[in-house]
Amino acid sequence: MAGAPSDVRASEDSRFEARRIVPEPPAPLAPDSESLDVWGFRDSGFTVNEAGQVEFRGARYPISGKAIPSLLPWAEGILGLRVDPFDRNVSQYPTGVPESRATAELEDALAASLEPGRVSRDPRVRLRHGHGHTQEDMWAIKYGLLPRVPDLVVWPISADEVRAVLQLARAHGACVIPYGGGTNVTDALRCPVEERRAIVSVDLRRMNRVLWIDPVDHTAEIQAGATGTEIEEQLRRHGFTLGHEPDSAELSTLGGWVATNASGMKKNRYGNIEDLVLAISAATPQGELTRQPSARESVGADPARWLIGSEGELGIVTSAVTKVFPVPAVRRFGSVLFESFDEGFAFLYAVQRSGVVPASVRLMDNLQFQFGQALKPAKGRLGRVKSALEKLYVLRVRGFDPERMVACTLLFEGSEEEVVAQERSVYRIAAAHGGMKAGAENGERGYQLTFAIAYIRDFMLEHWIIAESFETSVAWSAAQALCANVKQRLWQEHAKRALPGRPFISVRVTQLYGAGVCLYFYFAFHYKGVENPSEVFAELERAARDEILRSDGSLSHHHGVGKLRQPFLSRVFSPAALAFRRKLAQALDPEDVLGAGNG
Amino acid sequence: MAGAPSDVRASEDSRFEARRIVPEPPAPLAPDSESLDVWGFRDSGFTVNEAGQVEFRGARYPISGKAIPSLLPWAEGILGLRVDPFDRNVSQYPTGVPESRATAELEDALAASLEPGRVSRDPRVRLRHGHGHTQEDMWAIKYGLLPRVPDLVVWPISADEVRAVLQLARAHGACVIPYGGGTNVTDALRCPVEERRAIVSVDLRRMNRVLWIDPVDHTAEIQAGATGTEIEEQLRRHGFTLGHEPDSAELSTLGGWVATNASGMKKNRYGNIEDLVLAISAATPQGELTRQPSARESVGADPARWLIGSEGELGIVTSAVTKVFPVPAVRRFGSVLFESFDEGFAFLYAVQRSGVVPASVRLMDNLQFQFGQALKPAKGRLGRVKSALEKLYVLRVRGFDPERMVACTLLFEGSEEEVVAQERSVYRIAAAHGGMKAGAENGERGYQLTFAIAYIRDFMLEHWIIAESFETSVAWSAAQALCANVKQRLWQEHAKRALPGRPFISVRVTQLYGAGVCLYFYFAFHYKGVENPSEVFAELERAARDEILRSDGSLSHHHGVGKLRQPFLSRVFSPAALAFRRKLAQALDPEDVLGAGNG
Repeated sequence: MAGAPSDVRASEDSRFEARRIVPEPPAPLAPDSESLDVWGFRDSGFTVNEAGQVEFRGARYPISGKAIPSLLPWAEGILGLRVDPFDRNVSQYPTGVPESRATAELEDALAASLEPGRVSRDPRVRLRHGHGHTQEDMWAIKYGLLPRVPDLVVWPISADEVRAVLQLARAHGACVIPYGGGTNVTDALRCPVEERRAIVSVDLRRMNRVLWIDPVDHTAEIQAGATGTEIEEQLRRHGFTLGHEPDSAELSTLGGWVATNASGMKKNRYGNIEDLVLAISAATPQGELTRQPSARESVGADPARWLIGSEGELGIVTSAVTKVFPVPAVRRFGSVLFESFDEGFAFLYAVQRSGVVPASVRLMDNLQFQFGQALKPAKGRLGRVKSALEKLYVLRVRGFDPERMVACTLLFEGSEEEVVAQERSVYRIAAAHGGMKAGAENGERGYQLTFAIAYIRDFMLEHWIIAESFETSVAWSAAQALCANVKQRLWQEHAKRALPGRPFISVRVTQLYGAGVCLYFYFAFHYKGVENPSEVFAELERAARDEILRSDGSLSHHHGVGKLRQPFLSRVFSPAALAFRRKLAQALDPEDVLGAGNG
Repeated sequence: MAGAPSDVRASEDSRFEARRIVPEPPAPLAPDSESLDVWGFRDSGFTVNEAGQVEFRGARYPISGKAIPSLLPWAEGILGLRVDPFDRNVSQYPTGVPESRATAELEDALAASLEPGRVSRDPRVRLRHGHGHTQEDMWAIKYGLLPRVPDLVVWPISADEVRAVLQLARAHGACVIPYGGGTNVTDALRCPVEERRAIVSVDLRRMNRVLWIDPVDHTAEIQAGATGTEIEEQLRRHGFTLGHEPDSAELSTLGGWVATNASGMKKNRYGNIEDLVLAISAATPQGELTRQPSARESVGADPARWLIGSEGELGIVTSAVTKVFPVPAVRRFGSVLFESFDEGFAFLYAVQRSGVVPASVRLMDNLQFQFGQALKPAKGRLGRVKSALEKLYVLRVRGFDPERMVACTLLFEGSEEEVVAQERSVYRIAAAHGGMKAGAENGERGYQLTFAIAYIRDFMLEHWIIAESFETSVAWSAAQALCANVKQRLWQEHAKRALPGRPFISVRVTQLYGAGVCLYFYFAFHYKGVENPSEVFAELERAARDEILRSDGSLSHHHGVGKLRQPFLSRVFSPAALAFRRKLAQALDPEDVLGAGNG
């Protein structure tokens, strides 16, 4: 172009040309590796050995294969009653599976449009697709009954097949419920009892590929059914990570994370799911949503983003383009002990305000700190001596009260330089709050226990202890009051009903934000002799939720609403807002093909 | 509670109790301080002095009161034709204002529900509320005609009054268009010509208070009509800042930022508007949206957040709860010269990947670098010598080509420690890319020029040069090609039409993201002798937009869609997505009371 300045010419710089990588598929799915009746993998779980000690089965986790002799004695002390390791409330799983209501026509039509073996009416398979992991779910399949479950389960392997399933279901007057990892804790997968249509569960787990990685833009397209483990396996081979680690990451899927607006423990470094997802592709009964990803844009409402937190109600996520990150050079754990929860909380606040926040920071209250100690496997002689010396120092020299002290676990990721700078800043703040460094080993143990601890709920249920976790987010200024209010309310409700022994109620701070924190509660009580323990538990959990909302907490930080928290929606949304949500659902799915009935 | 562990007790820690601050109102609005016919404040603007040199009037900006002798000579060189400073295309503003169609009943009803003086049918006031700052808008009010403008303008002072206006408009069969700073560049405030109903412009500028600041949670509630300047005035008195600085921050408002999904130049530190806003309160024709803010939550679609990027179509934002930040101790500028745009771009990429990204990083191409030099005010003798020596070093010693070299400006904010660490990291990366530090002064000048430079468009238009800016976001891997494609396309389109002289087309990178960048283009040509120059310009801008989309750029990074970019929506959204957007608008505003017709 005559007279044009030099910068009108095309660049010859090839450093940033796109060169997409197509990763190898993940290791093939072993269809029977996951338990149907309890959390997690079949090879793992808590059990009682012949000596009446708790052990963790298998070899999957650091705690696997080890005896945990302190657990039951400690639990007895806390719950204020005897826990007989050999007295089990034996699971009656499966307690019965309703007949499939799917017509042969529907089954045949689905079978004709999918590859062989991708349609099932197997009762146990259908049962598994009708629940997640609330205590109500677990109680129902072991000691109660699930009154309604999917009538067919299908496994599409592509977005086209998902669309075909939606269209077939619609044409045959059936409804559809998408299924990812089946790990929800909100009754989101419970089938509405009054649903008269056939229910088709669309299991996305065969769609588990990372379709491409862009090593220049640090983006990847990932199919909705890939679990955290499968995503990391495919990305890490090429030096990348998604960095999204919800506690369920081994089993939960990208599509499920989008549908529940998931949060990962390392969100300080990588962001929560809404930060990670750049573009969502979804099948809806009214058409396909798909877009080019954008680093950031201003084009008004993007209907595909309405799928975030939609809990299966608006459409089925088929894939998403996400940010990815180079695997950090350094990953280091840490832990700090504080004299009290108040001091630990003040430390968290100061860390957040410092602007130097490690990938993960978690603060356990005293009871949870004790729980962590009780979960320590049996040690050899050397370990016992070392441990005793450490205790001596903490209790005698520092004067920490074992009934008040708390622990904070830390995870640093980044370059060596970044991590060193973060450690320097964080430990300086810890010292200013009277914190005592308790080592990387304790920190790592805390994080790795996250995955194994998820198995304990099913173990306890068989030992007459019913338990559940629930979460909220709350402003810094309201967090301490909320913790106390919820704990006191649950003690009161427990006492009012004269339930056995004492309740276990404990909290940890799992996420920090500028404006507030995520609080994660664990609640349990011994239910032997209690009538309808699952219903009683649900009543108490509702009371806790009421107290959370009264204390200015949110309805959910990352679990979502599902069916469990639906009754509270009118307390967090104005009438107009609720009406708009209904109108949105009607607009996107006028025939109600998506039948989960959540949110 | 008997037997309860210590952590069930209420905390006596008072460090985090909420103690909200109610700031003093901002300095009273001076209603005539803003120009009606051109950008910005009446006391400021480019002008030609008796010697035929360009000057900047007033005392508001660093450049104010100074002569800029190089500007016209440089422009002549670039445009390839003579620019006679005394040959003006004199503005005919106002070229005519359509009669108001509002009935006396509507006016009386509005007047009865608002305080005296808060309803106007003044023609110039109505005219001003019928446009933003596209070249089409400016051309129309100076040399053409705005065929349709609001029939009444009202100034509510509370959310209740906004709701009352919406209800009255609805009851009287009128429609409503919200108005903030009137700074849009998308024809968003243009009234649909075919609109037969009375149009009520709802000017929110009297709602300009920061209602409260929470110094513990670092949050504030801010009314929608507060400008960036007013917000900072109220927050800074109490040690806080919002940190949101779009180039229009002196005039644009919080409500406008929400409605356009705005981006601030310091987003690396503070986030874009969607990151800053925790809860939105809005009036809609179907009811009120208002919620408790949450640091982060998972409760499905929040209808109030649909207002982000809604461009006045779904409701009227009345206030928002936002994050706020302590005013940083240190604010330092910097600048670096690079041999070429490619090297500068590689530097940006490396900075983004380093994870240490200053509050703002901007890279100008060579033409824009030259433009910045041409805008330098006349210097005293000492300044001239220093400047000459600097040039000698850059050109002779470093061998930089003045027709290829580019400049990057930097803004660091934070604690002294943070800023020092950022500077060390950024300048190390700059050196690795052959960059030459060019000092804080040049950096600061670059940022401060942002505000004054906004006035140049109106000045040029009177001097037969028509100009406009437009932006996009694009992946790193596609950005260099996009820049070249857009520049070449505009040269071709300019040549094809045999327009006078040569076009001016220049780009800067204004925002960095993990996945890509925001590119901001300036485009101008000399229009003397051109028939319908505004239409010709619009044609070329559409060609540029076409080229942007063909080159995988987004439809908009932060300007929004308005009416200007509507024809391109079908290229970025699937048919189902577009249908869903329409359904959403119908659901929220079934009677189409919100009449702007955007997006």
